[in-house]
Amino acid sequence: MLRLARQFHAKAQPFPTRTHSCAQLSAEFEGRAVTLAGWLLPERKGRVVSFFPLKDSQGTTQLVVNHAENPDAAAVLASVPPESTVLVQGTVALRPQSARRPGPTGDIDVQVQKVTVLNPATDMPFLPHNIHNLPNEDLRARYRFLDLRRTALTQNLQKRSQVAFLVRSALHDQGKRFTEVETPVLLRSSPEGAREFLVPTRQLKAVESPNTTSQQDPLFYALQQSPQQPKQLLICSGAVDKYYQIARCFRDEDGRKDRQPEFTQIDLEMAFVSWGEFADANPVPVEAEGEYPWGWRIGGIQVRRVVEDLVRKIWLKVEGVELPKDFKVMTYYEAMSRIINLSDRLSGSTPSAAASVAASDEILECIVVRKSHETEFFNATRTLEQAHTEHITLTKSNMDKWLLESKAAREVFASANSSFSNLDLEGDSSTPEAILNESLHLRPGDHVFLAHRSRLPKGGSTALGRVRLGIFEEAQSKGEFRVTESPHFLWVTEFPLFTRDDSDKEFLAHGRWSSSHHPFTAPMWQDVEALKRGDIEHVRGQHYDLVLNGCEIGGGSVRIHDADMQEHVFSKVLQLSDEEKAPFNHLIQALRCGAPPHGGIALGFDRLMSILCKTQSIRDVIAFPKTSGGTDLMFKSPAPVDAQTLKQYGIQSVLEGISKEQKARKSSSPPAL
Amino acid sequence: MLRLARQFHAKAQPFPTRTHSCAQLSAEFEGRAVTLAGWLLPERKGRVVSFFPLKDSQGTTQLVVNHAENPDAAAVLASVPPESTVLVQGTVALRPQSARRPGPTGDIDVQVQKVTVLNPATDMPFLPHNIHNLPNEDLRARYRFLDLRRTALTQNLQKRSQVAFLVRSALHDQGKRFTEVETPVLLRSSPEGAREFLVPTRQLKAVESPNTTSQQDPLFYALQQSPQQPKQLLICSGAVDKYYQIARCFRDEDGRKDRQPEFTQIDLEMAFVSWGEFADANPVPVEAEGEYPWGWRIGGIQVRRVVEDLVRKIWLKVEGVELPKDFKVMTYYEAMSRIINLSDRLSGSTPSAAASVAASDEILECIVVRKSHETEFFNATRTLEQAHTEHITLTKSNMDKWLLESKAAREVFASANSSFSNLDLEGDSSTPEAILNESLHLRPGDHVFLAHRSRLPKGGSTALGRVRLGIFEEAQSKGEFRVTESPHFLWVTEFPLFTRDDSDKEFLAHGRWSSSHHPFTAPMWQDVEALKRGDIEHVRGQHYDLVLNGCEIGGGSVRIHDADMQEHVFSKVLQLSDEEKAPFNHLIQALRCGAPPHGGIALGFDRLMSILCKTQSIRDVIAFPKTSGGTDLMFKSPAPVDAQTLKQYGIQSVLEGISKEQKARKSSSPPAL
Repeated sequence: MLRLARQFHAKAQPFPTRTHSCAQLSAEFEGRAVTLAGWLLPERKGRVVSFFPLKDSQGTTQLVVNHAENPDAAAVLASVPPESTVLVQGTVALRPQSARRPGPTGDIDVQVQKVTVLNPATDMPFLPHNIHNLPNEDLRARYRFLDLRRTALTQNLQKRSQVAFLVRSALHDQGKRFTEVETPVLLRSSPEGAREFLVPTRQLKAVESPNTTSQQDPLFYALQQSPQQPKQLLICSGAVDKYYQIARCFRDEDGRKDRQPEFTQIDLEMAFVSWGEFADANPVPVEAEGEYPWGWRIGGIQVRRVVEDLVRKIWLKVEGVELPKDFKVMTYYEAMSRIINLSDRLSGSTPSAAASVAASDEILECIVVRKSHETEFFNATRTLEQAHTEHITLTKSNMDKWLLESKAAREVFASANSSFSNLDLEGDSSTPEAILNESLHLRPGDHVFLAHRSRLPKGGSTALGRVRLGIFEEAQSKGEFRVTESPHFLWVTEFPLFTRDDSDKEFLAHGRWSSSHHPFTAPMWQDVEALKRGDIEHVRGQHYDLVLNGCEIGGGSVRIHDADMQEHVFSKVLQLSDEEKAPFNHLIQALRCGAPPHGGIALGFDRLMSILCKTQSIRDVIAFPKTSGGTDLMFKSPAPVDAQTLKQYGIQSVLEGISKEQKARKSSSPPAL
Repeated sequence: MLRLARQFHAKAQPFPTRTHSCAQLSAEFEGRAVTLAGWLLPERKGRVVSFFPLKDSQGTTQLVVNHAENPDAAAVLASVPPESTVLVQGTVALRPQSARRPGPTGDIDVQVQKVTVLNPATDMPFLPHNIHNLPNEDLRARYRFLDLRRTALTQNLQKRSQVAFLVRSALHDQGKRFTEVETPVLLRSSPEGAREFLVPTRQLKAVESPNTTSQQDPLFYALQQSPQQPKQLLICSGAVDKYYQIARCFRDEDGRKDRQPEFTQIDLEMAFVSWGEFADANPVPVEAEGEYPWGWRIGGIQVRRVVEDLVRKIWLKVEGVELPKDFKVMTYYEAMSRIINLSDRLSGSTPSAAASVAASDEILECIVVRKSHETEFFNATRTLEQAHTEHITLTKSNMDKWLLESKAAREVFASANSSFSNLDLEGDSSTPEAILNESLHLRPGDHVFLAHRSRLPKGGSTALGRVRLGIFEEAQSKGEFRVTESPHFLWVTEFPLFTRDDSDKEFLAHGRWSSSHHPFTAPMWQDVEALKRGDIEHVRGQHYDLVLNGCEIGGGSVRIHDADMQEHVFSKVLQLSDEEKAPFNHLIQALRCGAPPHGGIALGFDRLMSILCKTQSIRDVIAFPKTSGGTDLMFKSPAPVDAQTLKQYGIQSVLEGISKEQKARKSSSPPAL
């Protein structure tokens, strides 16, 4: 067939204009002369006529060609290779009743009068319409332009565009009056978050040098990690009351599954955010916890409302699902407690141990995963175990001693100055295992993940939290677990404002406190005094995460708008040096120029789309994604750059330095005599 | 006043929610209790009451406070520094008839009951409301967040957002069904256009080394210059029938006025573009030139239609101007001829010289600028003269010999083997100056710019074309010339496909032919044979530029969709080496997989917005622009990066290499004994 194809060439001369897409024709077009263009799929040959599906990005129309009546067109269609682009002039015909199919073009055929080959597909590495015989992911990544021709990926791209437009429309709509502002991608290096990408410039900075007078240091931009500072500055400027941007962001992180070096977020920021109805009714609210309506005890209520409206519109339009008017709200403390606190369960049953366990700063927690039907599941997911967690598979023989054998439990009770013996000697004849087996309905085959942590949550996720997420993802990818049709949205609020427990931030913190979210997040007003007096670990932030079925899809906060408070956080809490503070000087300055109270949020657009497209991988919702290693197999990036080009930027490969050094060593060696 | 301000602090406790923007209240709100928030402007003090404008991004409302009735609020408002953010609770009151002003809130005041200072402006480097006393541009750039508070810039940002949304709405609208696709910013280095920015990665490539076994070369991404390849690949994939993106692009160009290292374009690409009505009526059009309707003799008619619709919608909505249904179309050859061809005028008048001049490959052209009212204008714009152009100011004394004294004219007639003496000796007693002075209506004080060029246009702009644009811009910036209220849009088509005359491309072409636009542009079908037989200079491309009042605002083309033709262009015309072709291999491959005919365009969004905002500088329509040198004075980018960080990317400063070299030379010197 490929040989035959050589007789065809791409059409360079004028050809007629198509009149309809391949998804557009229906019974009401019967008898109409039409011109279609698209990709030709393989023939289904009959005695009198042959059928060919013609496909474009919108759908498929069945072509019919009569061998006897139109031998030329029949011969062309039969001999041009599948996936070639052809232009067909023909007439819409109703199918016989028995041949009609549901779907957009299922009632009709197009009877072919004339065929023009626009471009023969002469060199196909694989056939994207043959979805049951696709090559491996690497090969498809190399030929991404063909993989995208698969209906599944085609529809993902279209849905992504639809949702992006929906987001923009919703924010522009009636009274919302958001302004979309493009912020710089080429920014300045700043130590606020993850590792950033650098961009060398041909600008140089003169530096003092003992040897020469004209030495110059190369200067770099950094690619924006998020528009955090630009968006706050926009709000401080007063030019923009409600900002948004569907923004490309860049992070040079490695070793993270399903992360991309560039990603997209729906980025919002709003001036004059407030506490909403509560504050309006009670300008000076009482201290008591729990008296706030709907559990939202922080500022930024306008951000909450906008995001809930937005998400509700997307789910209604794309999923046909009506979401509740108010999403649930849970404090971070409460969310952390959803992992089962074994300490409390045990201490409640064994009075004398209770006192010491309750008094302990360390608590023992567990997650239970019920016996799986697929026995291999947990063999494959052993890697889910995180440092400081323990995985016990219950069996008939360990049912009465699994806790006693647990290292995590041993450590907690040791720290509580309690002991295992206490647990089964006091009054109650039950063993601790018996208590837990009964209250948790444990059976042989169930899995228990154990860990201990300090009683007061420290910010960030806990080891067991990460295990829970890992199990969720594994189970979902193995088909063990499906996201419920009705999506459960949840706000988590009142995170600890500072942490010492986030290993991701340690490379900047060097043992100091770091911000759980970022250093611009405002404390809850109730905790401002604690912040001032240095009771850092009890300060909760006006931070909010939006969680969908256990998966975080966005996070934001009310920002500090008081320059003195921001200075206090930088200098007194985070203990930044002047040099570390320098990239934030203009922000501090902006706060001193009448910055309004403000807050915002960023939603992960790639993750959101992967949920809406019901796929596990964000690569399925990005047109040209990179591998988890950051490689683009089609564009073949990244790639080496020659030394001459690098020199324009005042840089060179480290190797270049080494080889020059070696040369220098050689050339300055005393000549051999 | 600043001293007094110290008594105020930013509000950290809950405050009421504002009920309206500062542009929202009118007579119909009379008597309503409202809560406004915004920036307080200076007091206008009366005996009984004081007035304060309260400003936000939407507009201004006048506050009134009665000294006797509300001494507390009056004292706060009087003592808080201007540009502080305050929240005001009060009542809408109708102004007395005589005090009413046109405009949104001109009929009302808000009588203040209660004031809450949200954030005092304690440290203002300048006062943005004081527009008659603004500091210089550099200082405003350092405090861009304050400069944006100026109403003019505030409105530019809002208009930009409005137009971007209009563009997206128009493309999504009824039947247009464009898909917005985000293409990678991190791409591979490719030699197709201007200089690109590089992004070092922490990925390394093992290289052979004679000395060590583990040497590794650093690898780089390049920031996209435009989504040219991704968008063509998207169309080739078939996943997207009509693509668009409002795309951030990056070019490392210097020395260009008003260019930014990052800029935004409205980027379109469409599958199955065709010749439109003409081709539909005449499937095999005749060769004759000039028979095509509306002057559009190339493909891509759908791109033309979409762009005209889009531009028409923008001008209607933003400017209230109804543009004509069809924009004018002019060929490149015709556009070039609009500069006055003196050769033809002279040859027509002096028969014997005519033959030699007409036969010459070199023609003499001029632009005439009429005597200016501002005599300094042309003193200031002497720099407009380009290499190979000549500027003559006509005076009473040179009116009869300016051409004879012209070097450009001398050179042309020399090349035509003609001479000046021929011109005024043949039959006609007029001097050449007399002929031209009369036909061009020249007067003393007028300016003539002269240049010669080859008769056949060579692609790109001519020296005189650049002078014309320079005069236009200078005159506009000096207020000498205003863009007419009715915008004139023009398509220029049929550019030469290849050029040797574009100095911008010479750094890649090295004396070979280069593409006038880019190497993917299709030839006019009439010139395919010329392309095949190597008659390169006569091949015209299916390229189109959109020009508004003499300023190019966009350009695009029908692309080559025939892999063999693309190969021919790369190898036979541009004579690219295999290494130079490598970055295009996946595109060639995509063309072999049934790529549809396609074409597209990119419109410069920053330039478009500067026209709509009636400003000369694109910096006025970008939230956080950089200087023409690429520096961001607020974020202080670009900035140095420490050697340790660079090392992670396998790179170092060239200096680092030098100093190591020096150290190596020192350390390997024989020790002084």
